[in-house]
Amino acid sequence: MPRPLAANSSMPDVPFQRIVIVGLGLMGGSIAKALRSRGFAGSLVGVVVDAQAVRRLRSAAKYWRISLTCEPEPALRNADLVLLATPPQIALRQLPELVRHISATGMVSDVASIKTPVAQLGRQLLGDRFIPGHPVVGGEKTGFAAARKNLYQGARVILTPLPEQAPAALDAVCGFWQCLGATVSQMTPEAHDQALAATSHLPHLLAFAYMAGLADQVPALRDLAGGGLRDFSRIAASDPDLWTAILSENRSAVVQHLKALQENLDTVRQMLAGDDTRTLKAFLKQGRACRQQFQFPPLTY
Amino acid sequence: MPRPLAANSSMPDVPFQRIVIVGLGLMGGSIAKALRSRGFAGSLVGVVVDAQAVRRLRSAAKYWRISLTCEPEPALRNADLVLLATPPQIALRQLPELVRHISATGMVSDVASIKTPVAQLGRQLLGDRFIPGHPVVGGEKTGFAAARKNLYQGARVILTPLPEQAPAALDAVCGFWQCLGATVSQMTPEAHDQALAATSHLPHLLAFAYMAGLADQVPALRDLAGGGLRDFSRIAASDPDLWTAILSENRSAVVQHLKALQENLDTVRQMLAGDDTRTLKAFLKQGRACRQQFQFPPLTY
Repeated sequence: MPRPLAANSSMPDVPFQRIVIVGLGLMGGSIAKALRSRGFAGSLVGVVVDAQAVRRLRSAAKYWRISLTCEPEPALRNADLVLLATPPQIALRQLPELVRHISATGMVSDVASIKTPVAQLGRQLLGDRFIPGHPVVGGEKTGFAAARKNLYQGARVILTPLPEQAPAALDAVCGFWQCLGATVSQMTPEAHDQALAATSHLPHLLAFAYMAGLADQVPALRDLAGGGLRDFSRIAASDPDLWTAILSENRSAVVQHLKALQENLDTVRQMLAGDDTRTLKAFLKQGRACRQQFQFPPLTY
Repeated sequence: MPRPLAANSSMPDVPFQRIVIVGLGLMGGSIAKALRSRGFAGSLVGVVVDAQAVRRLRSAAKYWRISLTCEPEPALRNADLVLLATPPQIALRQLPELVRHISATGMVSDVASIKTPVAQLGRQLLGDRFIPGHPVVGGEKTGFAAARKNLYQGARVILTPLPEQAPAALDAVCGFWQCLGATVSQMTPEAHDQALAATSHLPHLLAFAYMAGLADQVPALRDLAGGGLRDFSRIAASDPDLWTAILSENRSAVVQHLKALQENLDTVRQMLAGDDTRTLKAFLKQGRACRQQFQFPPLTY
């Protein structure tokens, strides 16, 4: 494990000094590791679920100079940035309770893959002190051990602030992510959820559904898959609790994209059944050409 | 580029001394590189499409000690193994012509992803001197430059011989692949194509179809995809000509699996539309559990 940089002075760019991260899984843990490995010298508190989690993570947290707690009230009162990094359904439950303890100047952000419900609740509870965010990175592995100090390096982070958002607060959260190496952009929560249904949520659902559909053929098929199915289905190894929540919260957009896909598949089936290779080839070419236009994050594993 | 091992004596295990590889793309090129890098000292002829291809590949072929030709007759007459490594639709066209020049003791094998039509034709033309094979590896990159000497290391190769296959010939082709580091198994061509429809052909079709379905939303979505869609759709970067041929040749099995998937997606859409999170979660868990039972090849990139 690489030693985080020892830092006597704060990293100049991080626009917060007392940061509380609620949830030290892949996303929150990677924020903490990224901050420390880039020399952040401010206070860093990690909020975990219970005393058992405090014990379990104690030595790793000490290594990364994270103060661990399952009783976050004092830290919340002092924080200038609280980052919610729990799964979206848990974040939605936690937010009202957390808000009771956050100071009137503390900013709050989050990392949920679905933005409309979180943005609505945050706006209601915190006004423009809540700046919803979504780093478009992740992985099927979970937990602090899977967290990586370079997870956000080169990543895209989408912020979905209020239209009337005070620019100083927005700039600060934006600067925070830029310090971790991310590229930040903005859109409305609704546009975010509509887009991510197509670029992330439905692909996850399809990967899960594809593998579930093979359930009764596993003994015959398990040794006959190559790298194609391995990569196609990698996201089916993701956390079913998390993905149930994301898919449920964004079900209207996901259903809409799924319907379009189903019509698409009807057309494809007709091409195949009629052995219309000319149309099929044009269709495959369109798929490949479309993929070439996407800007995917670089492979990091 | 790593230097292939210099070898004064033949690699002891390769059961052939004069090998002709028809097609020096990813598959055929990787066989040639694997043979030379493992010390194969026998004769190795690479058959390419025309004089221009001979010129283009000349220096790379010299490096790997491959004799290049676009006029394969003399080499075919002397070969004790001819490996067809062209795309299946081309291999089907080439085989009758090639067979006219192959000696009565020469063995023939191939690497096509679809086995029934190739096996039928090979059987008809060569009897049990044709042993159809399919290495369950590949990649979306094509051409000799993309070929890798370790492509078959740890890979699975499926042979689909006749039931009445002479064991010596089968053992020789099996031994050939084992020399390249592969694990060899056997099944009928029909069982192979049925299984591969599920583990490879339909996933490719879905990846292409998914990306084709996003064609009119590219400007809005191209910067909003993470590693999930990147890996899910990697195989949509594959060669449309090759995949049109595979899907067309195996359309009956692919359509059958596609129908089952479409029913599956209808069910999923109902779960989502009704926000039946309990059933949805069980379904996602089933997909994840099913994937965990698969033996995928290791990541090599």
